[in-house]
Amino acid sequence: MTHPNFTSEQVIETLKWRYATKKFDPEKKISAADWKTLEQSLVLSPSSFGLQPWKFFVIRNPDLRSQLVEHAWNQSQVEDASHLVVLTIKKGIDNSDVNRHIERMADVQEIPKENLQGLENAIKGFLQDPPFPLDVDQWSIRQTYIALSFFLYSAAVLGIDTCPMEGFIPAKYDEILGLPEKGYTAVVLCTAGYRAADDQSADRAKVRYETEAVVTYID
Amino acid sequence: MTHPNFTSEQVIETLKWRYATKKFDPEKKISAADWKTLEQSLVLSPSSFGLQPWKFFVIRNPDLRSQLVEHAWNQSQVEDASHLVVLTIKKGIDNSDVNRHIERMADVQEIPKENLQGLENAIKGFLQDPPFPLDVDQWSIRQTYIALSFFLYSAAVLGIDTCPMEGFIPAKYDEILGLPEKGYTAVVLCTAGYRAADDQSADRAKVRYETEAVVTYID
Repeated sequence: MTHPNFTSEQVIETLKWRYATKKFDPEKKISAADWKTLEQSLVLSPSSFGLQPWKFFVIRNPDLRSQLVEHAWNQSQVEDASHLVVLTIKKGIDNSDVNRHIERMADVQEIPKENLQGLENAIKGFLQDPPFPLDVDQWSIRQTYIALSFFLYSAAVLGIDTCPMEGFIPAKYDEILGLPEKGYTAVVLCTAGYRAADDQSADRAKVRYETEAVVTYID
Repeated sequence: MTHPNFTSEQVIETLKWRYATKKFDPEKKISAADWKTLEQSLVLSPSSFGLQPWKFFVIRNPDLRSQLVEHAWNQSQVEDASHLVVLTIKKGIDNSDVNRHIERMADVQEIPKENLQGLENAIKGFLQDPPFPLDVDQWSIRQTYIALSFFLYSAAVLGIDTCPMEGFIPAKYDEILGLPEKGYTAVVLCTAGYRAADDQSADRAKVRYETEAVVTYID
């Protein structure tokens, strides 16, 4: 498979360019082609065992977006960004989700389901007796943060601004979007679009600890 | 700031090129320059409020890596990959971590700490009375999955293979690496390097649900 490498310098430039956008330009919209790529970044994100314990709700209804602002600490991004994604987990992932995944795998990889019995048992065994104390919804949330991050990173390499947002009331989002009836619950938001020319946070120096304070080598 | 865009096609190619590498070529090592970029991807990862509730341990001691294999379901990547990172959280993030962050921010952005009082109060308020039921360690783990994902994605755009690994016994890793004494606990592993020529999983079709099954538009 072809692989279009970035250079190291380009990676660092991209990571430094990215920031949590506080003020979007409400007039600038993400193109359909770019959006399709961002959507596919969510779809193609890795997850534990490939279970994809999530669903991504893209809220396009302007009245709904306006209604959702107040339940996200009145942060304007919810309404002003080109796109608003509510990342959700499927509650209570269980063996039926493993079955669904195994069936999909057999289908996509064109192999008999019987060949996947070992994998199926391994995943079900993990859910039954995880190697660490595990709340299955917390585990699904971790996976959803991978999808969030792939979305953020893809946006950055495309030159699209984002703001991941934990500051909202999931119960209110669930209620307004009717998520519990569908089996889902909101875990994190992501807004995407283009920074407003006067977003003051764009120019602030990125605050990170020294590398030595967060990376330790054990030789 | 300059921004080196990928095209949409390059993003999709990169995401499809990436896979969880099951077998690394033990002879192929990541160059020092590329490693520095991966390390900086961890450092530059976003986190809630920028708190960076994590530390990344890079295990270079071959005896230790060999010893760690059995506590990761005997997965060979722990020993064979060019690099092994143990991503950890700082246990029990609290107001002292907020203070440390605010001091760092004042320092990096060259502003008086007094100007950051509002932010400091907001973060402490969040920890005190979060908008959703929150176990602070689970919250830190979510953030650490962002760092994991940024590492995975940076590796992919550089043409470096990775394998994120949850299948290990955190308590054993903690014990062997002496993490609890330092205040940290292992949450996820990531191995990085180059796929072995005979890694059969490299050519398998990526298994994902249909886009329509995971992305829902609310109009």
